[in-house]
Amino acid sequence: MSRPKAIEYADAAPQVRAVFNDIKRTRKVDDVNNFWKYLANDPALLKRTWESVKEVMAEGALSPLIKELLYVAVSVTNGCGYCIASHSASARKAGMTEAMFGELMAVVGMANETNRLASGYRVAIDQAFG
Amino acid sequence: MSRPKAIEYADAAPQVRAVFNDIKRTRKVDDVNNFWKYLANDPALLKRTWESVKEVMAEGALSPLIKELLYVAVSVTNGCGYCIASHSASARKAGMTEAMFGELMAVVGMANETNRLASGYRVAIDQAFG
Amino acid sequence: MSRPKAIEYADAAPQVRAVFNDIKRTRKVDDVNNFWKYLANDPALLKRTWESVKEVMAEGALSPLIKELLYVAVSVTNGCGYCIASHSASARKAGMTEAMFGELMAVVGMANETNRLASGYRVAIDQAFG
Amino acid sequence: MSRPKAIEYADAAPQVRAVFNDIKRTRKVDDVNNFWKYLANDPALLKRTWESVKEVMAEGALSPLIKELLYVAVSVTNGCGYCIASHSASARKAGMTEAMFGELMAVVGMANETNRLASGYRVAIDQAFG
Amino acid sequence: MSRPKAIEYADAAPQVRAVFNDIKRTRKVDDVNNFWKYLANDPALLKRTWESVKEVMAEGALSPLIKELLYVAVSVTNGCGYCIASHSASARKAGMTEAMFGELMAVVGMANETNRLASGYRVAIDQAFG
Amino acid sequence: MSRPKAIEYADAAPQVRAVFNDIKRTRKVDDVNNFWKYLANDPALLKRTWESVKEVMAEGALSPLIKELLYVAVSVTNGCGYCIASHSASARKAGMTEAMFGELMAVVGMANETNRLASGYRVAIDQAFG
Repeated sequence: MSRPKAIEYADAAPQVRAVFNDIKRTRKVDDVNNFWKYLANDPALLKRTWESVKEVMAEGALSPLIKELLYVAVSVTNGCGYCIASHSASARKAGMTEAMFGELMAVVGMANETNRLASGYRVAIDQAFG
Repeated sequence: MSRPKAIEYADAAPQVRAVFNDIKRTRKVDDVNNFWKYLANDPALLKRTWESVKEVMAEGALSPLIKELLYVAVSVTNGCGYCIASHSASARKAGMTEAMFGELMAVVGMANETNRLASGYRVAIDQAFG
Repeated sequence: MSRPKAIEYADAAPQVRAVFNDIKRTRKVDDVNNFWKYLANDPALLKRTWESVKEVMAEGALSPLIKELLYVAVSVTNGCGYCIASHSASARKAGMTEAMFGELMAVVGMANETNRLASGYRVAIDQAFG
Repeated sequence: MSRPKAIEYADAAPQVRAVFNDIKRTRKVDDVNNFWKYLANDPALLKRTWESVKEVMAEGALSPLIKELLYVAVSVTNGCGYCIASHSASARKAGMTEAMFGELMAVVGMANETNRLASGYRVAIDQAFG
Repeated sequence: MSRPKAIEYADAAPQVRAVFNDIKRTRKVDDVNNFWKYLANDPALLKRTWESVKEVMAEGALSPLIKELLYVAVSVTNGCGYCIASHSASARKAGMTEAMFGELMAVVGMANETNRLASGYRVAIDQAFG
Repeated sequence: MSRPKAIEYADAAPQVRAVFNDIKRTRKVDDVNNFWKYLANDPALLKRTWESVKEVMAEGALSPLIKELLYVAVSVTNGCGYCIASHSASARKAGMTEAMFGELMAVVGMANETNRLASGYRVAIDQAFG
């Protein structure tokens, strides 16, 4: 009834362990991030979220690196501290260099600025954009 | 005293025309988007914003296509209608396919979801993320 | 049971009319904005909101003009179309010039940009700021 | 000239103590939360905010539990750390079980996701919704 | 390559039709909302989103009505026009009265206000909240 | 490749030092804030951001105090902890009194509330606002 707590593998129910095992296998890591350990408080939420993330972040028309950059862009825009920390780490693991990080920040900063200029000036949508 | 209006080239002051010309040259377009025509109400803001955008969106460690995808990700997260319309168009021009757009939306959606799960569960930052 | 509708003075219950009258008297206007006509669907919400707004927006340590500029800054940051339209109009009525509007937009844009840079770089709070 | 500080009952002016007393009486608690102690720096803001919160959160067409769940949903969407902590606690006190918390997080996460999908795909409003 | 378009049942691929059919069956409706018709541009996104929404919005520890109220609360906080329209309609269908809607708006408004007061005053988290 | 770190003057490249020197000269301070030390990881981003901020925050149609109040309003709305701390300090330095801070918070809180009421009630824009 207090602050949510992380659930470690040793204390986890079988259906939670199954998800943890799949995360570790898929990502080739020894332990899952805290994010998953907290979601484990609700096994159905954990399972659904992991299966969606696994499907969405897989190699596709966009590479895993680009997808991680997008994840950081959203997390920074929302100001989610945990997400910025964890997805910056994932992006670096997926190949993000320091130069890329700097440009990522520059684009995210600029987009947040011009989004407000467009709203503030009440810019009418160009006919070409439909 | 009313709603801001677009300033067309024909009615623009010389320093505004100079920016419009540079946008058209840089982007190889016949006319600038409405966004710039509205910013033209404040020539200093127009000039500074364009010069920043030009520098930020240029080819660098990240390609123009990736930068446009990031711009869309931010604009969608902020719910900026004009920006979604204009940067989706720019992204398509820069090479975004329909398959890429679908995956972009999927990542942006998922990131907005997990950002809230991380905040709501008050997930502690993993030691590995510093 | 469908889309909320504006309630006009002629159709309003006495306690709604009383609020409308106070708005018109306080603001020296002939009719209230649509915002109040929609809130009139819930007379308690209408009354409480108006009384709070009236108290908050009154001349104080900050002038009504500064308060309207702040209102626009928040509305633009939130991307609230109605609020941008109505509070830009109020700000102009309170004395906002075109030059002020341009600088307001510039500050709001820049603040939205640097807010994300600070979050994205995970900037530690300076000791001086406590 | 520094960071705002909490004002304790012992150091509070009479009109602040009056509000603190009403909060303690209404909520049947021995002390008020930090939120109120900080607002006490501006007695008018404290009084108006408490009176609005008291009126809004009272039993009505919606129960206090549902209202606290809604408060958590908004706080999580905004990423407000203090508000998530304090309103999760209030919700638990009002009867929120762990199962409810898990479902609350699931709905909030999903709504944040589909909000962006609707914006990103620029979905036209169905005629039925007006 | 232009603005995304709705995909009608008659033009839909078999795997899209299968999802549309399941939505119609589950919700007992004659046609799906525009939201699903736009997502149909990416069949994998459509299927995953529907299956998640179906699972999340089902009767559980929280009733479908409470879940729809939460959905509206998030959508209003994010300012998502389409989502406000469609989930207000769903909430009404699930039993939301006009009195409930007014209180919902009041709570959402108040939560958005106090979220900012807590952030602006940099309120320290009470020891009791962990 | 880990968490971004502050770059101190002693360790900074010449083009970074040049920006630091200009900040110190312009603001008449002995050292720059952490914000600039982190941006120094990307010298081009540092230079562009500083030059824009310097131009935007200068005395103009709006005073530096009003501009700092606007900066705080945006930062509070976005819930950016670092930005609230640093710009509250700047605003105080520029002349913000405690009474002004209280009214600033009141306006920001109220604007965030009424923004949601306007969106939730789907208020139609008054003809007078265009």
